Amino acid sequence: MRVVKLTLAYDGTGFVGWQRQAGGASIQAIVERAIEPFASRDGLALAGAGRTDAGVHAIGQAVSARVDDRMSPADLQRALNARLPPAIRVTGAEEASATFHARYAASAKTYAYHIVQGPFVMPFEVRYAWHVPRALDLAPMREACAALAGTHDFAAFRAAGSRVRDTRRTIFEARLDVDRDGTHVTFTCRGDGFLRHMVRSLVGTLVDVGHGRFPAGHLAALLAAPDRGAVGATAPPHGLFLVSVDY
Amino acid sequence: MRVVKLTLAYDGTGFVGWQRQAGGASIQAIVERAIEPFASRDGLALAGAGRTDAGVHAIGQAVSARVDDRMSPADLQRALNARLPPAIRVTGAEEASATFHARYAASAKTYAYHIVQGPFVMPFEVRYAWHVPRALDLAPMREACAALAGTHDFAAFRAAGSRVRDTRRTIFEARLDVDRDGTHVTFTCRGDGFLRHMVRSLVGTLVDVGHGRFPAGHLAALLAAPDRGAVGATAPPHGLFLVSVDY
Repeated sequence: MRVVKLTLAYDGTGFVGWQRQAGGASIQAIVERAIEPFASRDGLALAGAGRTDAGVHAIGQAVSARVDDRMSPADLQRALNARLPPAIRVTGAEEASATFHARYAASAKTYAYHIVQGPFVMPFEVRYAWHVPRALDLAPMREACAALAGTHDFAAFRAAGSRVRDTRRTIFEARLDVDRDGTHVTFTCRGDGFLRHMVRSLVGTLVDVGHGRFPAGHLAALLAAPDRGAVGATAPPHGLFLVSVDY
Repeated sequence: MRVVKLTLAYDGTGFVGWQRQAGGASIQAIVERAIEPFASRDGLALAGAGRTDAGVHAIGQAVSARVDDRMSPADLQRALNARLPPAIRVTGAEEASATFHARYAASAKTYAYHIVQGPFVMPFEVRYAWHVPRALDLAPMREACAALAGTHDFAAFRAAGSRVRDTRRTIFEARLDVDRDGTHVTFTCRGDGFLRHMVRSLVGTLVDVGHGRFPAGHLAALLAAPDRGAVGATAPPHGLFLVSVDY
């Protein structure tokens, strides 16, 4: 038996998300089917670090699995890429300690959210960015962003119906980057954990700040006194990428 | 009546190419349907500068059309983008002279061909680059590339069955660019005109040079003495982009 750590990139378009659920193909189920022939006799115990939602993409999802030790991680990577659809690629494979679990062992995750502002989105980007036609005022958005670093109660920014008890999370870094012509705005956020829909809810609220619907201080106020009714709409999933997982 | 010059970007995946033909949706037919309500009474006379093949993309296709002059080019662009599918975007619109024809008036076109070398292609690029798993030796490819500039007989590099009489074309610039980690190789070529499949046939031959199947001088030899049997396989369409058209 060998525990491997796999790094996965995937285009989440058309998938129901990382986790198995009724009514569609999950990334996890497809990866499990591909890795099945190489599973250890003790069972696969496949675990993904981030449970990305339907339509969310990954550049560096981390996955742990127990496999047969007759195959090297490099050979396993090759075999999996031959078996997986092109929308899912194994970009790295390495041996991990026998107790390694991709979700429990993660110390931080980085998410990026891509926005294209302006009259249109190029056809090549339409599946990977949220189109916001109306111009964004970036200065108050940056100011709002600065309030994110630190440990806060993110209860206002979780999915409706979520019943997680502890809604405090620590954000190590949050920033907005803009490309030279001003059309591509990227929100990047690194933290010790994220509530369901948290990044998308933060982005929806930031966009409302950029449109003047909320003042720059609104985000900080919601962290100080959570109020789910006062956040912006949840941004659509297709702009979101799980960029990397730290251990 | 007003003649407009439109600049189009499109994702060619799933289309039969620019030109109308039986058995599938052409970019031209879809653009014609979108622009129909704004056509001049004398007829649309829609013309595209490059007749891109099935699966080929465009960043800067140029199109001429005769439209009703009650609508400004900017309003026309907005209206078209509202009517077209996300895979086709009008990125620019301007008034042109009454005699402007996007194909006949073009003085040069620039094409780019994207290759990803190495064990895998990221899911986000799989529709926009040719995957060449085996490592390419770039030095002889660059040497072969250098032979392209100038006026040559490209008869060896045209599509099978093509019956164009004059197969001489002038290439103003041809180059290979490689990204920092060496995985992304882009062939860019600017010329006064291109035979059908010419860029893809040149790329197929360049890749054979990069794999040592042909020497660096092979391309120059084929320009001096055309021999369709001695060129590489035609590279697949999905790596090819019509980048821009000069007037």
